[in-house]
Amino acid sequence: MSYKNFPMVPRVIFGRGSFNQLSEILAPKRLNINAPFIFLVDDVFKANSWLTSRIPLSYDDKIIYVSAAEEPKTSQVDSLVENIILNTKERPSGIIGIGGGTLLDLAKAVAIMLTNEGEAKDYQGWDLVKNEAVYHVGIPTISGTGAEVSRTTVLTGPDRKLGINSDYTPFDQVILDSELTKKVPTEQWFYTGMDCYIHCIESLEGTYLNTFSQSYGEMALELCKEVFLDEEGLKQSDSEEKLMMASWHGGMSIVYSQVGIAHAMSYGLSYLLGTKHGIGNCIVFDQLEEFYPEGVKLFKQMKEKHGIELPKGICSELSEADLNKMIDIAFDLAPLWENALGKNWQKIMTRDKLKELYLKM
Amino acid sequence: MSYKNFPMVPRVIFGRGSFNQLSEILAPKRLNINAPFIFLVDDVFKANSWLTSRIPLSYDDKIIYVSAAEEPKTSQVDSLVENIILNTKERPSGIIGIGGGTLLDLAKAVAIMLTNEGEAKDYQGWDLVKNEAVYHVGIPTISGTGAEVSRTTVLTGPDRKLGINSDYTPFDQVILDSELTKKVPTEQWFYTGMDCYIHCIESLEGTYLNTFSQSYGEMALELCKEVFLDEEGLKQSDSEEKLMMASWHGGMSIVYSQVGIAHAMSYGLSYLLGTKHGIGNCIVFDQLEEFYPEGVKLFKQMKEKHGIELPKGICSELSEADLNKMIDIAFDLAPLWENALGKNWQKIMTRDKLKELYLKM
Repeated sequence: MSYKNFPMVPRVIFGRGSFNQLSEILAPKRLNINAPFIFLVDDVFKANSWLTSRIPLSYDDKIIYVSAAEEPKTSQVDSLVENIILNTKERPSGIIGIGGGTLLDLAKAVAIMLTNEGEAKDYQGWDLVKNEAVYHVGIPTISGTGAEVSRTTVLTGPDRKLGINSDYTPFDQVILDSELTKKVPTEQWFYTGMDCYIHCIESLEGTYLNTFSQSYGEMALELCKEVFLDEEGLKQSDSEEKLMMASWHGGMSIVYSQVGIAHAMSYGLSYLLGTKHGIGNCIVFDQLEEFYPEGVKLFKQMKEKHGIELPKGICSELSEADLNKMIDIAFDLAPLWENALGKNWQKIMTRDKLKELYLKM
Repeated sequence: MSYKNFPMVPRVIFGRGSFNQLSEILAPKRLNINAPFIFLVDDVFKANSWLTSRIPLSYDDKIIYVSAAEEPKTSQVDSLVENIILNTKERPSGIIGIGGGTLLDLAKAVAIMLTNEGEAKDYQGWDLVKNEAVYHVGIPTISGTGAEVSRTTVLTGPDRKLGINSDYTPFDQVILDSELTKKVPTEQWFYTGMDCYIHCIESLEGTYLNTFSQSYGEMALELCKEVFLDEEGLKQSDSEEKLMMASWHGGMSIVYSQVGIAHAMSYGLSYLLGTKHGIGNCIVFDQLEEFYPEGVKLFKQMKEKHGIELPKGICSELSEADLNKMIDIAFDLAPLWENALGKNWQKIMTRDKLKELYLKM
């Protein structure tokens, strides 16, 4: 048996207001005055001077605002990289992602593609990246995805939705300032937080589980319960901090295990319908009582507590061909199914069964 | 307010038998055939071929067996470094520490002192290290100290017991193979495990606590309870894995907080009496009911469950001058006292009070 030698984020700073230390963190990483820092920032912050005025810009440093309305694409990475190469005198000193999972994944992918030839789609898979990425920093402004700590960057390519999994993918630096999450709208807060919750359930209920993943998963699950079932009347700032830590630990939990059915099926939704990852997970998980009975029960409680209404009938208009493509995409993620259902997963989850589940959504 | 930008161990491998992957981990790190890997190994393994036969030696690689009977000293680091410089053709490719906290701290310190001038004692303190250390790997064979994950290496110097705290101190790679801990004698297993337990209590009850430290501390504490109060009849291997993860998380918990009274007082015992850190913490903590009532109560339960008898009267023969020196050493660690008792700690913990506590031990 061979174990993964997992790369961890080598630097982390935690605390409300720690975003103010960005300038001192970046200064020693500047290669020269022609090698700028490029800030990829979620465009919801475009008119938010509370945040943008604190982004330290010197020399040729630039902010690029990016919409997170859609899941990140390989083509989007390629055009960001082209734009950066055309508009900078030298290879950037660093790429700083400020936003949710979409922005964090884009920042990781752009940092990789600045030092690796070809197109982003060529690197979807495991350990295909040859060269070390440009220095890259992740600053989450919404909690749950675990993108700040993971070894992947999940992208929708022409053929599939799949991560660039590599030792060069993780951020060189993460800033965990929960104050940046204070204005997240309730629905998005819920969907993204549930990404973490579902990571935990899928990891803890999976056949790949070991003590490492279990300890992180249990910790993250506990924190999710505190935040989303909040019986104790948490202070808003405490709730934000706890969810930020839940996301971090939840991400660590899947390092040594794997996600499961909700993620596999949600990838299918994203690919065919463009459904965002967080809400997609929720829509799927809501139907998985048979596989994760306890987890789904608690999920429904949390949904109710926060008055969340999930869209219905999203697959009802799909053609047979589209449904089949969606099933192909989901089944392509064999490790997720094996983690959830064991080696004989194909006997448990047939195409018909999967189709039936999709049609319930 | 400024937050610490904490360096984390950038690579970790977890799993029983993962020690077998040491060779493939080290191979790409060899600088050239004249730059050997030096393995610092606890001398309890000297005749243990189960372990030693799996240490991969090529070219001029060397094993140096080191006794962990005493706490590590700055002078010991200096003589190890001198020995290595005299007996290698080039600066080593890496230092690999295999053992408990003593061996891990020695490995970290030796790696630092191979690239920094002067003596180890010159670097006791915070951020005094100028140059990046030699590549260094930590492989714990006993769980609890958190040395595998910490940013310090605690050494007894001519003037004080104090760590070399620096961004260059953490290991570049850690191997968490709980199988290596299977032969630890019960008493040592208990004392070292309690180091972790006490970290958790001191961190969780401290005034420096924040959400980051709290989440790691609670997870580690939960694991310690599972291991040491074991109501569920854990399998031996599960118990070993859980304690290894507890040590890891407990170490992470004090990153952003601090230890407390037991550690401050135990440093005094070590300095004056040479008491090993683990047992020293236990002897002190056993008397701290007034400050950590719940924690000490549980500690006594665990002690009883495992039939541990602590030595008594260890300070009774000390001269007044020695007692005063011990108190000086303990009081020198102001942040630990402040964490435990708040800004006005000196009003709560007087010299007389401290002396009285020492004399109870």
